[in-house]
Amino acid sequence: MSLELYYWDGLQGRGEFVRLALEEARADYVEVVRGKSSEGLGTAAMMALMKSRDEPYPPFAPPFLKDGDLVIAQTANILFYLSPRLNLAPSVESLRYVANGLQLTIADMVTEAHDTHHPLASGLNYEDQKDAAKLRAHDFIDHRIPKFMSYFERVLKQNPAGDTFMVGDALSYVDLSMFQLIDGLLYAFPRALKRFGEHYPRLAALHDAVLVRPNIAAYLESGRRIEHNEACVFRHYPELDKAAT
Amino acid sequence: MSLELYYWDGLQGRGEFVRLALEEARADYVEVVRGKSSEGLGTAAMMALMKSRDEPYPPFAPPFLKDGDLVIAQTANILFYLSPRLNLAPSVESLRYVANGLQLTIADMVTEAHDTHHPLASGLNYEDQKDAAKLRAHDFIDHRIPKFMSYFERVLKQNPAGDTFMVGDALSYVDLSMFQLIDGLLYAFPRALKRFGEHYPRLAALHDAVLVRPNIAAYLESGRRIEHNEACVFRHYPELDKAAT
Repeated sequence: MSLELYYWDGLQGRGEFVRLALEEARADYVEVVRGKSSEGLGTAAMMALMKSRDEPYPPFAPPFLKDGDLVIAQTANILFYLSPRLNLAPSVESLRYVANGLQLTIADMVTEAHDTHHPLASGLNYEDQKDAAKLRAHDFIDHRIPKFMSYFERVLKQNPAGDTFMVGDALSYVDLSMFQLIDGLLYAFPRALKRFGEHYPRLAALHDAVLVRPNIAAYLESGRRIEHNEACVFRHYPELDKAAT
Repeated sequence: MSLELYYWDGLQGRGEFVRLALEEARADYVEVVRGKSSEGLGTAAMMALMKSRDEPYPPFAPPFLKDGDLVIAQTANILFYLSPRLNLAPSVESLRYVANGLQLTIADMVTEAHDTHHPLASGLNYEDQKDAAKLRAHDFIDHRIPKFMSYFERVLKQNPAGDTFMVGDALSYVDLSMFQLIDGLLYAFPRALKRFGEHYPRLAALHDAVLVRPNIAAYLESGRRIEHNEACVFRHYPELDKAAT
């Protein structure tokens, strides 16, 4: 049976980190929300599972994955679970925990990227928290991007197996997620990231290497890849962007 | 060799979720930062490991755990790694991913609890973002606490093995973390949580059951348990608290 990925339609969001791993591995998966309601798919199917009053361990929020009867929630957890099967986990067992730690640090930065446009309340519109968003976004650019990215650059530099991959000597899902994080930030904050490659040469090289992997390149050009947009975690609001100090 | 836990001294913070698991299991561990610098311990030892320019896979932030040569970062990841050894993981393999998904949802709520007092910038003082904090805290009380807690209550209710534990039919680290989350919120927002037991009876029962477990009770009364305070994720600022609507 195919893996079933549940995520909102119309945006990359956190689901995209899972999609990139599935696409790199050319895995057989169903994007449930994009299916037809006549086939028991669509957004209603996702909501029914989330709101179910008898499902054991229902998920709190998308993305989640269904593998047979097992429902697995949380992006990093889905990737941890799936990656051995997709051949995207480090082969050394202990390095899987290193990978998971890095993935969760990527997830923390994704949350902070989200909060640049929603610092006061995720349920309020951006327009109603624009002033606070500007303060948070500029702090993100001045302090958080350098802190996270200089850390990730250092992880590459100090990888005992060389500075090509985040963990070990082969591609893992962490590299794909790192690509997506950088890609999202390049979209949201082009002015802030103007000199990204100069400041973080290893990360920029990793981003560019993922971009041209055949399965990733094919996916990015396919109709399955949704464009960046302002429904996503990574939003381009010019007033929140500025040159890095 | 003992497990080495690295976390800031003087606050519960995210380290406390790991401590509770170690204490429940009566594990042999060293709280590195509280040790003597003459023995190679203390805050300087933690900073040296974080800032090291040759450590493979240095951690981004505390808490992290050192188990021999392996350094494991991120609270949920540490617990995922440790829990089988501490006999605090579900015995059914697939339920370990359920546990990890729930733990990451707890972690998300912890981050939101932190952001109630630091909505604009983690590097700015609370006093410099008090107005924004009030807006975010009240949204947290009105919308986020009910959303998260009614979800967790439902997970208990729908647990096929009964409503005593979050996952399966035995105590896991997720129950200890759920206790800590509730305990922190009771400290930070006593007015908002005044009717917690009425709204979320299963969660309240879980909290009370963990509180009287012998190893937990002994730990909470020991000098090792740091009191809640305003250096922590969970801070009691009366102006941020209010009755739930």
